Amino acid sequence: MHDFNPSPAKPRTRGRPRLAPDAQASRQALLRAGLAQLTEFGYVAVRLDDIVEAAGVTKGAFYYHFRSKADYGAVLIAEYDAFFRARIAQSLERTDMTPLERLYDFTKLAEAGMARFGFRRGCLIGNLGQEMGALPEDYRATLIAVLAGWQEMTAACLRAAQAVCEIDANQDPNALAALFWTGWEGAVLRAKLERDPAPLRQFSAGFLRLISK
Amino acid sequence: MHDFNPSPAKPRTRGRPRLAPDAQASRQALLRAGLAQLTEFGYVAVRLDDIVEAAGVTKGAFYYHFRSKADYGAVLIAEYDAFFRARIAQSLERTDMTPLERLYDFTKLAEAGMARFGFRRGCLIGNLGQEMGALPEDYRATLIAVLAGWQEMTAACLRAAQAVCEIDANQDPNALAALFWTGWEGAVLRAKLERDPAPLRQFSAGFLRLISK
Repeated sequence: MHDFNPSPAKPRTRGRPRLAPDAQASRQALLRAGLAQLTEFGYVAVRLDDIVEAAGVTKGAFYYHFRSKADYGAVLIAEYDAFFRARIAQSLERTDMTPLERLYDFTKLAEAGMARFGFRRGCLIGNLGQEMGALPEDYRATLIAVLAGWQEMTAACLRAAQAVCEIDANQDPNALAALFWTGWEGAVLRAKLERDPAPLRQFSAGFLRLISK
Repeated sequence: MHDFNPSPAKPRTRGRPRLAPDAQASRQALLRAGLAQLTEFGYVAVRLDDIVEAAGVTKGAFYYHFRSKADYGAVLIAEYDAFFRARIAQSLERTDMTPLERLYDFTKLAEAGMARFGFRRGCLIGNLGQEMGALPEDYRATLIAVLAGWQEMTAACLRAAQAVCEIDANQDPNALAALFWTGWEGAVLRAKLERDPAPLRQFSAGFLRLISK
């Protein structure tokens, strides 16, 4: 995603100076390149050499920033989470729309994000989730927590929808938010498989129609 | 899945004799081993050597039956589709339940299938769909067709539900079936990630509640 903008690295230890601009640039290039490759091909299929080459940096630069591929992946998950929470907030915190319109807006933004790359790239979290059997085991708790965080942002939006009577008072916003994210990750997978926005549109339209009062 | 029972190989050419029992057994062992490994670790992460070793056959036996890993994967998809269509039919063609009860029954059967392996194995089709960027390109059309087939079986069940007024007349059974499979594949992914049946239960309960009249 062209707006994925990894944060500057923080000094690792007290007193250690911030990275020089060149080092910051190589770190960001590595994270951008990895995101592009992992969301298209998956963690296992992509070798460190592919990432280093796509980033246009040396292998030494990689090991300056990351201890291993596993360490690199963990940083990438954290950066992607921060990026994606901002993307969700961009829609769900709009004040010029009703709560359900905001959720619809998020799905359109996400669709535009996938369209930009011809629907070849999926969601990093969904992709890694599917590959979990072959990944470092400590990714599991992180991926679950990331999805729970997105779900909580969505539940807040659905509570707001309930407050303005867009959804029924007897619905459980937490359960609906879980249903949304389960289904949405499925829709992203399917859109990537079909290289087509239809699964995203069908899911968002169907979900919103079913929950609307 | 312990009930995955690959069909006997058909003679490749007219007049060629059927495979000897030993050859049939090695073919079935290879397909069972591959299904177990691919649904847990993914296509890319599993090497031919892993499959051959897990099947307890020689590499020569592998190449007797399959031209390549790509050819093997294509046969596995076809076998899995046949197996899974039978599993879907087992629930959706029951006559002792209402149509929506049959769909719920399918989700419970599928949950039991995942529970048998500690929720470590997902759906072969969903797994491969997520990995598509790194797979033989001709898998794409096959995977799409497999999902469309399952969806059509489900749409027939939802039309029956509509006929007995379990769902509203203004619902579109095809759209609901698409929504179900998109979401269900997402739920299987999530259950595998969390090693827990909760995402499956939440999805099936939520979906059925939302579509029920």
